[in-house]
Amino acid sequence: MCGTDSPASINKSSLPSANGNGIRSPTCSSDHVLNLEQGDPAVFESYWRKMGDRCTMVISGCQLMSYISDFTNICWFMEPELEEAVRTLHCVVGNAVVDDRYIVVGTGSTQLYQAALYALTSPGGPEPVSVVSAAPYYSSYPEETDYLCSRLYKWAGDAYEFDKNGTGPYIEVVNSPNNPDGTLREAVVKSRGDEGKLIHDLAYYWPQYTPIIRLADHDIMTFTFSKSTGHAGSRIGWAVVKDKEIARKMSKFIEMSTLGVSKDSQQRAAKIMGVLCDGYQNCKSANKSDDLFFEHNRQIMAERWERLRQVVERNQVFCLPKYPKQYCLFSGELIEPYPGFAWLEAKEGEEIDSQKVLRGSIKVQGRTGRRFGVAEKYVRISLLSNEEVFKEFLERLSTIKSMSSNGH
Amino acid sequence: MCGTDSPASINKSSLPSANGNGIRSPTCSSDHVLNLEQGDPAVFESYWRKMGDRCTMVISGCQLMSYISDFTNICWFMEPELEEAVRTLHCVVGNAVVDDRYIVVGTGSTQLYQAALYALTSPGGPEPVSVVSAAPYYSSYPEETDYLCSRLYKWAGDAYEFDKNGTGPYIEVVNSPNNPDGTLREAVVKSRGDEGKLIHDLAYYWPQYTPIIRLADHDIMTFTFSKSTGHAGSRIGWAVVKDKEIARKMSKFIEMSTLGVSKDSQQRAAKIMGVLCDGYQNCKSANKSDDLFFEHNRQIMAERWERLRQVVERNQVFCLPKYPKQYCLFSGELIEPYPGFAWLEAKEGEEIDSQKVLRGSIKVQGRTGRRFGVAEKYVRISLLSNEEVFKEFLERLSTIKSMSSNGH
Repeated sequence: MCGTDSPASINKSSLPSANGNGIRSPTCSSDHVLNLEQGDPAVFESYWRKMGDRCTMVISGCQLMSYISDFTNICWFMEPELEEAVRTLHCVVGNAVVDDRYIVVGTGSTQLYQAALYALTSPGGPEPVSVVSAAPYYSSYPEETDYLCSRLYKWAGDAYEFDKNGTGPYIEVVNSPNNPDGTLREAVVKSRGDEGKLIHDLAYYWPQYTPIIRLADHDIMTFTFSKSTGHAGSRIGWAVVKDKEIARKMSKFIEMSTLGVSKDSQQRAAKIMGVLCDGYQNCKSANKSDDLFFEHNRQIMAERWERLRQVVERNQVFCLPKYPKQYCLFSGELIEPYPGFAWLEAKEGEEIDSQKVLRGSIKVQGRTGRRFGVAEKYVRISLLSNEEVFKEFLERLSTIKSMSSNGH
Repeated sequence: MCGTDSPASINKSSLPSANGNGIRSPTCSSDHVLNLEQGDPAVFESYWRKMGDRCTMVISGCQLMSYISDFTNICWFMEPELEEAVRTLHCVVGNAVVDDRYIVVGTGSTQLYQAALYALTSPGGPEPVSVVSAAPYYSSYPEETDYLCSRLYKWAGDAYEFDKNGTGPYIEVVNSPNNPDGTLREAVVKSRGDEGKLIHDLAYYWPQYTPIIRLADHDIMTFTFSKSTGHAGSRIGWAVVKDKEIARKMSKFIEMSTLGVSKDSQQRAAKIMGVLCDGYQNCKSANKSDDLFFEHNRQIMAERWERLRQVVERNQVFCLPKYPKQYCLFSGELIEPYPGFAWLEAKEGEEIDSQKVLRGSIKVQGRTGRRFGVAEKYVRISLLSNEEVFKEFLERLSTIKSMSSNGH
């Protein structure tokens, strides 16, 4: 999932403006609120700009007009070029098993999450199936589960709580690396025969954010173009699915929800993934690793985390999670995770509202821990902005000396 | 809505194949089933091919990456270029009021229909709100209303029935011109104070299909790129909405459902609509009406209906609806409707299963009247195929001499 939700509730004047070409004009002057609540992946834009024309997509007026992509595929609205690109990308990265698996394309992984809930439940049960995820969980799961008041499933909160006190059939969403806190996770509800089903949301399981510690092989794994390459505006996600009937039901959901997925974006995603993979197939031997997407952007994320940790350690107001180095199968090195979000915890006092303090004292908009099912001393800050905004964030953060004296 | 649903249940070998570029290779040999069940708008492809490079969309790898299009808009994920193009298109055609109205973009009108149901209902009611439409109604409404077993709304069938016997709050979907039967419609449930709400599905209210009899001005009107210009693969629809809160709730639905709508497709739709409108602004005075989208394609539809009526009248097996000529505000002439579907009614016997007979005797796949809430003596046939498939359909249809002797 994307780590992003509605900007509509935020004061308009506080936000960086965005033009139609996705080129953002951040307003960094000190009297403006810096919006780091959403996870808009602007950090990757410079890489793709450097690629010049190699990823340019050209579509004539008479192309891609049909609803149908491939009648022979369970996911009949998936462009064969995208399926091939997705399989190649996973083979290059080694982050998920794709052989003998079904691929289902969706309008972002947001839609695929809902498709998975639909596929894992059936009408006519005595109660809606409980949907849980270990807190802190991705803040959009509750809303995306409950907005239609389905009788098929309902949000049931923290998976640790459910493991202790919950009963009946359930679906656990395992988000790894986890949004908001960047931890690599496994299911927490202890198995109860066939009552439990799993969705693995692997949106951030890519080498710029985390060591690739194993070839993931779960029943339903969801990924998104938004977080893998940074193309959020295209709304392309995909699921890797073991069971044919589940893949069929997920495809049926997407058919009923949106009658397929934009072919323009599917073709564009296929092209961009193709260029990314070609880089590995052609350039790795030439040792030009700065031209390679994951190496280039991992470097940027590593530098951002180093700068962030320096500021946080210097002013002693917040803690950041510590991540163990782990062996990365992709790079062949022991490396640290560099998550897309900073999960800041106020050091002073349990009742501090960190979101409120950041907003009040340094005009930085994060997202409160409450939205993730934990205390408000936590706040999530996006590290995926462009460099100008990130730099301004660090400058403002470095001015905070104490939480209790800053508007609490 | 689109008039199309899953091809997954159809025998694969019976279907025209579709390649990744949307260029279909129909298999018209007489031993193949001709699939005219879906409303794939292939008929318009030749027009756009003739336009050459004028509609070609070019997107570089670093463009359109952000989730956000315009923070100042209620529909924050809508590209301003698309909103402008939609408004211009309606002004050129004169089919709907857009001044002082909100535009909401969706992943096809399929998503907007569901967004409207969400916007018109609230959690906590004693019963789900009844959703009705006059039979024969679009075959996907029941499924799209009920697949998530929402407590907000439920499909309640034929609006005429509901008008007689139904009680409680309801939403009536008015599909005009109606899919499947091409009639221009108004709401049928007699007003009951504020218990009833309306959604106007105007997917086919464009000059190639129907006279534009008035400037439509309803609370919620939905349209789709699929049926207006024929670009179904892009999954772009839009709603024209009077009330700000309804527009806000519809946008919120789309945010929770798919976190926005493909920007690549929004930009492409804006470009194609722009070229279409430029044609009217530049060429109408030059009298080159064959270059104009609606005139060109209305001519094709008119010819198809003339050929179809000849065959149907000659073999005396089916009836077709008769449509009165009406004054068209767009063309300034009295003209006939030329719907995108033929709604065939078997002349012999009430119990004839027309879909089965067509499939058995001439290997033509239509969609049975049962799916539209009426008798199986009716069958819907798409008239939006390419010319080769349409011609083959007429040749096969002309060989039918009697329903009862053809496999009934």
